[in-house]
Amino acid sequence: MAETPTIRFGVIGCADIARKVSRAISLAPNAALYAVGSRSLDKARAFAAANGFPAAAKVHGSYEAVLDDPDVDAVYVPLPTSLHVRWAVLAAQKKKHVLLEKPVALHAAEFDEIVEACESNGVQLMDGTMWMHHPRTAKMRDFLSDSNRFGQLRSIHTHFTFAADADFLENDIRVKPDLDALGSLGDEGWYCLRAILWAANYELPKTVIASRNPELNKAGVILSCGASLHWEDGKVATFHCSFLTNLTMDITAVGTKGTLHVHDFIIPYEEKEASFYAATETGFDDLVSKWIPQPSKHIIKTDIPQEALMVTEFARLVADIKFNNSKPEKKWPTISRKTQLVLDAVKASIERGFEPVQIQE
Amino acid sequence: MAETPTIRFGVIGCADIARKVSRAISLAPNAALYAVGSRSLDKARAFAAANGFPAAAKVHGSYEAVLDDPDVDAVYVPLPTSLHVRWAVLAAQKKKHVLLEKPVALHAAEFDEIVEACESNGVQLMDGTMWMHHPRTAKMRDFLSDSNRFGQLRSIHTHFTFAADADFLENDIRVKPDLDALGSLGDEGWYCLRAILWAANYELPKTVIASRNPELNKAGVILSCGASLHWEDGKVATFHCSFLTNLTMDITAVGTKGTLHVHDFIIPYEEKEASFYAATETGFDDLVSKWIPQPSKHIIKTDIPQEALMVTEFARLVADIKFNNSKPEKKWPTISRKTQLVLDAVKASIERGFEPVQIQE
Repeated sequence: MAETPTIRFGVIGCADIARKVSRAISLAPNAALYAVGSRSLDKARAFAAANGFPAAAKVHGSYEAVLDDPDVDAVYVPLPTSLHVRWAVLAAQKKKHVLLEKPVALHAAEFDEIVEACESNGVQLMDGTMWMHHPRTAKMRDFLSDSNRFGQLRSIHTHFTFAADADFLENDIRVKPDLDALGSLGDEGWYCLRAILWAANYELPKTVIASRNPELNKAGVILSCGASLHWEDGKVATFHCSFLTNLTMDITAVGTKGTLHVHDFIIPYEEKEASFYAATETGFDDLVSKWIPQPSKHIIKTDIPQEALMVTEFARLVADIKFNNSKPEKKWPTISRKTQLVLDAVKASIERGFEPVQIQE
Repeated sequence: MAETPTIRFGVIGCADIARKVSRAISLAPNAALYAVGSRSLDKARAFAAANGFPAAAKVHGSYEAVLDDPDVDAVYVPLPTSLHVRWAVLAAQKKKHVLLEKPVALHAAEFDEIVEACESNGVQLMDGTMWMHHPRTAKMRDFLSDSNRFGQLRSIHTHFTFAADADFLENDIRVKPDLDALGSLGDEGWYCLRAILWAANYELPKTVIASRNPELNKAGVILSCGASLHWEDGKVATFHCSFLTNLTMDITAVGTKGTLHVHDFIIPYEEKEASFYAATETGFDDLVSKWIPQPSKHIIKTDIPQEALMVTEFARLVADIKFNNSKPEKKWPTISRKTQLVLDAVKASIERGFEPVQIQE
């Protein structure tokens, strides 16, 4: 068997999340940390030193220099959302494959510019939603897709909150209108909406209605919000996200025959082992005093963490394009766009006084 | 110590749920099965024989005969909701204490008639919401009330669904507009709303908005529905209930410092042991790759099941009134009424095309 081709990554920006993804690039068997760029050369140097970049790695004092490096195959873009369209489009124009943090854009039209640039330059685009790549997610998907064990999805609830500290609420890019203007909705709500769409097999809801009384900071950035989503066939979903309450990350998905529960869907409790609960045709004993059968716990182990599996999958697609002349995989930008579309609808509903907003593809 | 006084129960109606509560009356140390009445004497006789009534128990061919029996202290009323006001009021007038199935009435004004009859006749009124009496519920309450472990409640989601079979969907009283006209909302939604109010320390929400597209049967009875509830201080709750999906009974309650999860809150998986998950100030390791600390599982054992604990508590209050000249405990009808008020608001919101409905006490 031929050696696994190695895809060389450039990281543009030294955000906190880039530390985790840099480690993931090191851990992925088909990827290598090759370059890092920051607006400050010192910052880039310190980042490379602290995050396992090899001694030979290129360290640049600008994002452009990374994009101009002919040996960089792909870039990871952890920049604030408001900078995504500029840098992802430029990366694509420079023929770099793009691994892009979420939310992918400030709104779907902006994301469409990124998609167009990637498509016309033949590069792969994928967002950084790590939990999609955990093997647990595939096992849960098997359960949801099983008409005998789960039946048809009818209701789903997701919850993602964490208690941001005072420094976060004052200084994090996610509370700044000029950086991550979508706030909690863009950060946490992204995961809630992705989980809902994932459970619904990426069928878009017809109508989205934001929950009343979202909490905003002084600059008008969302700190907590929620919504209900409604499909033509009667399926219903609700979600809630907040920067102001204890760490919680739930999916409850209920089908005609089964129920799925997971409480750590975005970041598993443990790095190398994750679980979920599945119930099928649960009922009661004769006096309705106990459950028969009870839900079962499923444990899934991984050798490398989900973010490294994400990098591995992205690098595999990139290698397929680079070495086998394959076309970019459209699945990933397609589900990114759907997530953004629903996110946009939640935002629109908030802005229109919690009126129902119809989703149009 | 004096012997525990025994409260003699009459059961009016032989509904399925009366089997479970009759067993509970047998199990409660301070209660005794004393009489049963049905519109059919044969049915009452068969019920008594099958459900542990002592040989000396009185078996009547009418509900009135039970109410007229001077040795009956208290009645358990498992009749369809539409009959509650008539029989609960009559029972109170006959000086019988009333253990009343839920939903307590078709609407709050009707329940007020029951409360008025019980108050003016000095009898105890309690609804049959069994899980309120499980020791797990007290432990979960301790957690929610702990400002260090849970902080302030900010969001809550409850889910109660079960997959009714074809016979239920055709024939059960809960799908009949003349019997349990509130359908899934009255049956399952009652528990969801009670759990929300319980978590909110019985503070009523200000506004209730029903979820779009509730499912109704041909007779217009609700088979599935949901709503969001909003408090003045920004707390938000959502619930979903359905007769059409797999058995699911969840509470997710999120506070500023903690998170509560329970998946079998109405009927525990096991009769004598129940658990919940509590998390306090959960966060991540440095690379946001695992949770520190993780939620903890709490297991609570009971000697007798929650329905027997409910009967024990009810009989204790009745004995206090009967032997110690105490006043009826107002806590129980008060929380019944609040549950009914919010339930009425959900129904009103559905009827008004999902408009927000203000709750007025």
